[in-house]
Amino acid sequence: MDMKEKKISGEILYKGKILTLERDKVLCPNNDEAYREIVRHNGGAAVLVVNDKNEILLIKQYRYAYDEVIYEIPAGKLELNEDPYYAAKRELEEETGYKANELISLGIIYPTCGYSSEKIHLYLAKGLSKGKMHLDDDEFIEPLFIDLNTVKKMILNNEIKDAKTICAISNYLLMEK
Amino acid sequence: MDMKEKKISGEILYKGKILTLERDKVLCPNNDEAYREIVRHNGGAAVLVVNDKNEILLIKQYRYAYDEVIYEIPAGKLELNEDPYYAAKRELEEETGYKANELISLGIIYPTCGYSSEKIHLYLAKGLSKGKMHLDDDEFIEPLFIDLNTVKKMILNNEIKDAKTICAISNYLLMEK
Repeated sequence: MDMKEKKISGEILYKGKILTLERDKVLCPNNDEAYREIVRHNGGAAVLVVNDKNEILLIKQYRYAYDEVIYEIPAGKLELNEDPYYAAKRELEEETGYKANELISLGIIYPTCGYSSEKIHLYLAKGLSKGKMHLDDDEFIEPLFIDLNTVKKMILNNEIKDAKTICAISNYLLMEK
Repeated sequence: MDMKEKKISGEILYKGKILTLERDKVLCPNNDEAYREIVRHNGGAAVLVVNDKNEILLIKQYRYAYDEVIYEIPAGKLELNEDPYYAAKRELEEETGYKANELISLGIIYPTCGYSSEKIHLYLAKGLSKGKMHLDDDEFIEPLFIDLNTVKKMILNNEIKDAKTICAISNYLLMEK
């Protein structure tokens, strides 16, 4: 069966700094019409760093949408049509002061398939060296290395809640097996 | 250091069926002012089903935001202030025709911490029985059981991209160890 929905018409409700909100009228496979509210987003890139002591580089960052400081791997949003590989390298250095010589893909994830087009490109850092931290004016970030076994416990007891962080660690563990 | 941003003022840009878009002016820790575009969402609940043959229940579903049919675990959005436990039970039966006697928490994930308040409650189904599938008028879903080892390969080769699905399987594998 063809499950695809066909766009009949669409309107842009809001064009913002980091997202665009659209509302499309679509034709469903059963020929019914429905509306879809869609957040258009350039996507992001995130980097898992595992050092030679088997520690994971996490950052603590305040997130306004949740009004919480949460643990995440370094990440950032893409400029329109930006290569995620280079965005990942840049964000890693800016947010943590570490440079990766090479990045290996850990896949692409779809964080919110119900209403957003955002895709996050996950990478594993290889060849780590010390660079220079450089945060945006409104970024306040604390980077720290945490032992992998402790990180697993933090996922299990829900201290780590960020989806891209859990996915990157999970995909890394599957890859290492 | 207090990383918290304080809301100065806010406006609702759009109030839709599944999300509300807000734009808030905030005071950053360095006393600069900034704007935050935030999607307010009631959150969701998702259920991982592992049967006695060690197979995972996945659904194939068309997602308009990506214009793709993707693999996911059964899930649905919450009504305002709805208990995620009961939402998870309901969505499992509606989308797959399976009933769980009991659900065990696999944690709460934050899928898009940069711009959305959505939280997804993850559960593991226990005591599976056959119920009755009942889809919304505009839902077209195909449920299928796939062997856990195959599912791991599908995550690794990026056939499975949905973040809540990867997180639920990852948290289950960590818990089982």
